[in-house]
Amino acid sequence: MRQSKLFTRTYKEAPKDESSYNAQTLMRAGFIDKLAAGVYTFLPLGLRVHNKICKIIREEMDAIGGQELLMPALTPKEVWETTDRWAHFDALFKLTGGDDKEYALGATHEEIVTPTVAKQVLSYKDLSLSVYQIQTKFRNEKRAKAGLMRGREFSMKDMYSFHPNEESLNEYYKIVQKAYFKIFERLGLIDQTYLTYASGGAFSKYSHEFQTLSEAGEDTIHICQQCKIAINQEIIEESKGCPHCASTDLQAQKAIEVGNIFKLGTKFSAPFNFKYRDAEGNERPVIMGCYGMGPSRVMGTIVELAHDERGIIWPEAIAPFQVYLLALNQDKEADKLYEALKTAGVEVLYNDLDLGMGEKMADADLIGCPYRILISPKSLAAGGAEIKRRNSTESVIVDLKKVVDYLKK
Amino acid sequence: MRQSKLFTRTYKEAPKDESSYNAQTLMRAGFIDKLAAGVYTFLPLGLRVHNKICKIIREEMDAIGGQELLMPALTPKEVWETTDRWAHFDALFKLTGGDDKEYALGATHEEIVTPTVAKQVLSYKDLSLSVYQIQTKFRNEKRAKAGLMRGREFSMKDMYSFHPNEESLNEYYKIVQKAYFKIFERLGLIDQTYLTYASGGAFSKYSHEFQTLSEAGEDTIHICQQCKIAINQEIIEESKGCPHCASTDLQAQKAIEVGNIFKLGTKFSAPFNFKYRDAEGNERPVIMGCYGMGPSRVMGTIVELAHDERGIIWPEAIAPFQVYLLALNQDKEADKLYEALKTAGVEVLYNDLDLGMGEKMADADLIGCPYRILISPKSLAAGGAEIKRRNSTESVIVDLKKVVDYLKK
Repeated sequence: MRQSKLFTRTYKEAPKDESSYNAQTLMRAGFIDKLAAGVYTFLPLGLRVHNKICKIIREEMDAIGGQELLMPALTPKEVWETTDRWAHFDALFKLTGGDDKEYALGATHEEIVTPTVAKQVLSYKDLSLSVYQIQTKFRNEKRAKAGLMRGREFSMKDMYSFHPNEESLNEYYKIVQKAYFKIFERLGLIDQTYLTYASGGAFSKYSHEFQTLSEAGEDTIHICQQCKIAINQEIIEESKGCPHCASTDLQAQKAIEVGNIFKLGTKFSAPFNFKYRDAEGNERPVIMGCYGMGPSRVMGTIVELAHDERGIIWPEAIAPFQVYLLALNQDKEADKLYEALKTAGVEVLYNDLDLGMGEKMADADLIGCPYRILISPKSLAAGGAEIKRRNSTESVIVDLKKVVDYLKK
Repeated sequence: MRQSKLFTRTYKEAPKDESSYNAQTLMRAGFIDKLAAGVYTFLPLGLRVHNKICKIIREEMDAIGGQELLMPALTPKEVWETTDRWAHFDALFKLTGGDDKEYALGATHEEIVTPTVAKQVLSYKDLSLSVYQIQTKFRNEKRAKAGLMRGREFSMKDMYSFHPNEESLNEYYKIVQKAYFKIFERLGLIDQTYLTYASGGAFSKYSHEFQTLSEAGEDTIHICQQCKIAINQEIIEESKGCPHCASTDLQAQKAIEVGNIFKLGTKFSAPFNFKYRDAEGNERPVIMGCYGMGPSRVMGTIVELAHDERGIIWPEAIAPFQVYLLALNQDKEADKLYEALKTAGVEVLYNDLDLGMGEKMADADLIGCPYRILISPKSLAAGGAEIKRRNSTESVIVDLKKVVDYLKK
């Protein structure tokens, strides 16, 4: 894409009304715009990144048999009363319609998915199954100061699984755990992300969070130095050492919760009276699990982790474009290379703006595409285009005809 | 996909609490589920159709230079006060956050897009431009009895264009008109869809709706028998004949509004003080247009139009699957063909359920995939698989090895 066709611009200064690094930088670079505290617009660059994160998550959820659906955000009071959460779920945004009907904005969807799936499941033959959605969620947060990491409106992948018995849930729970680590690997977060024990509720002793180390994190986790799992702050007091290996050698670190998985048991199937008939014809309760991961929070987390003082350093898998192309007095050569890259299917953002080289270089670093390609009299004299990776200080000169091959290898 | 892996089921009876044909049928066939009046979940089959409609719309908006973004649903009171619509827009759902901040749920996004784009546009060099989103909208409808055609929560493609002058807007307005007809052509709605004159507001005498003829429509339009454009009910009284050719030979028909386009002029740029500098350095107001089309309403409209007494007849472009495969006592051959079709990239839903042939046939017609392929002792004796189009009573026998070629031609 030509940057002249992109309606957004970059800013030198950070916005004054935003305190988080991720939102400041994403706003400066033209990825997001702030509408209100914790409420952001995804501008074209930001939407591209967000969609790529969603695609990775979707592929891994599909790979473990998740069936995608899309539930409403406007949810009637009655379903929340059924589980006694209307009165007790503080973060619910509540509203009243013209016909005096009361609604909550979906902050999570157990209350919707349970009766929806219950209508479709009659017998053990229909189980187990899992469904998921990637959808906008709303939470009436008191504070919303962490940019994309804690929004009043944000995106969420929420998966729910339904099982005939506990063994089936336990098996699937492990499968989801693996799929989550696969996602964090693809997102470039695997090295900093810890499986973290958290409190479990009535059905299970523990639930699990996926916590990514970051000084910007709102959470503190305690990493077992022996087996490299972690324990969250909430249960550290009652935990006598690591729940996995019993070691007491734990180290506290700041972290961002990028996912969580939870064995729900019959917590939601019971109030909705969701039962199935087993092979002998007996009615039995359905056992549930739930699995959350927020694409917008993941995006904010990656910005917190992958940046330097000049801007963002996107991992290739989710970069808005793979290549940032710019030219010094060599627009003709740059135009030609731009077309060649597009034809070869390389995602390229071409800074064709009427700006000085310093400003173009600053844009390149701020926006943070993995490869910067510069064509200048100097690079041509040296033999072609100068290619530099965003996360490196080294550059190489590549013959203009070989740039596509270079990028594809 | 194997139907045994799909968690939804089909129902013989229409749901009791739903009066519209489109929602009744989509619920019976397992495409949607009803959460509340005018609020539906898209189940896997329905989400596939919805996504295909969105893809077509997206491609045509991209083709005319639309830049995709995604705006929030939670919108602060202040922006609606700026345009004086907080008090006067009846269909706004309003709510209050924990910090006493008031919000409306986005029913349309002029109040959000205008200040967002204004931050990015400084001079005539930045214009014209157009942006769009495909997003969930909320309207506090008094009645919501038309299924997907009038929801309290529904999907909307809303595009907004920004221009340096009226000529630029007029030119783009015509381009969008053409793009809309291209979409309706791809959706199979072109023959029944009329460009319809509607009231225009202060800036322009007329706006335009796209109205698709249907007895289920909530609107009445008046079709000029001479030039085949239409006039909506709202302005028929004041219109002395066809606004296009002046003919008075008009015929009233029921129709569904599937899109609308509107020249906004400075209606929104003025209150937000959105101006640009022209080439001479003078400040000038930005001129706007807006262009709506609802994917979920389009989906409901297609069901209203394309069905028979047995179920839905999806156009190929948006069918959940191209092929519905079923077998009578020939599961092995059907399994083989299923794999061959998948390998060839044909979208196939394979009814591998333990059901009688009558039920499988009823499912095929209800779900409405364009091709039904049946393998039975009779079809094999005749030379292969029986292939029948959903919209035809004729069938042909095709050699099992040639089915893929037959479908691809």
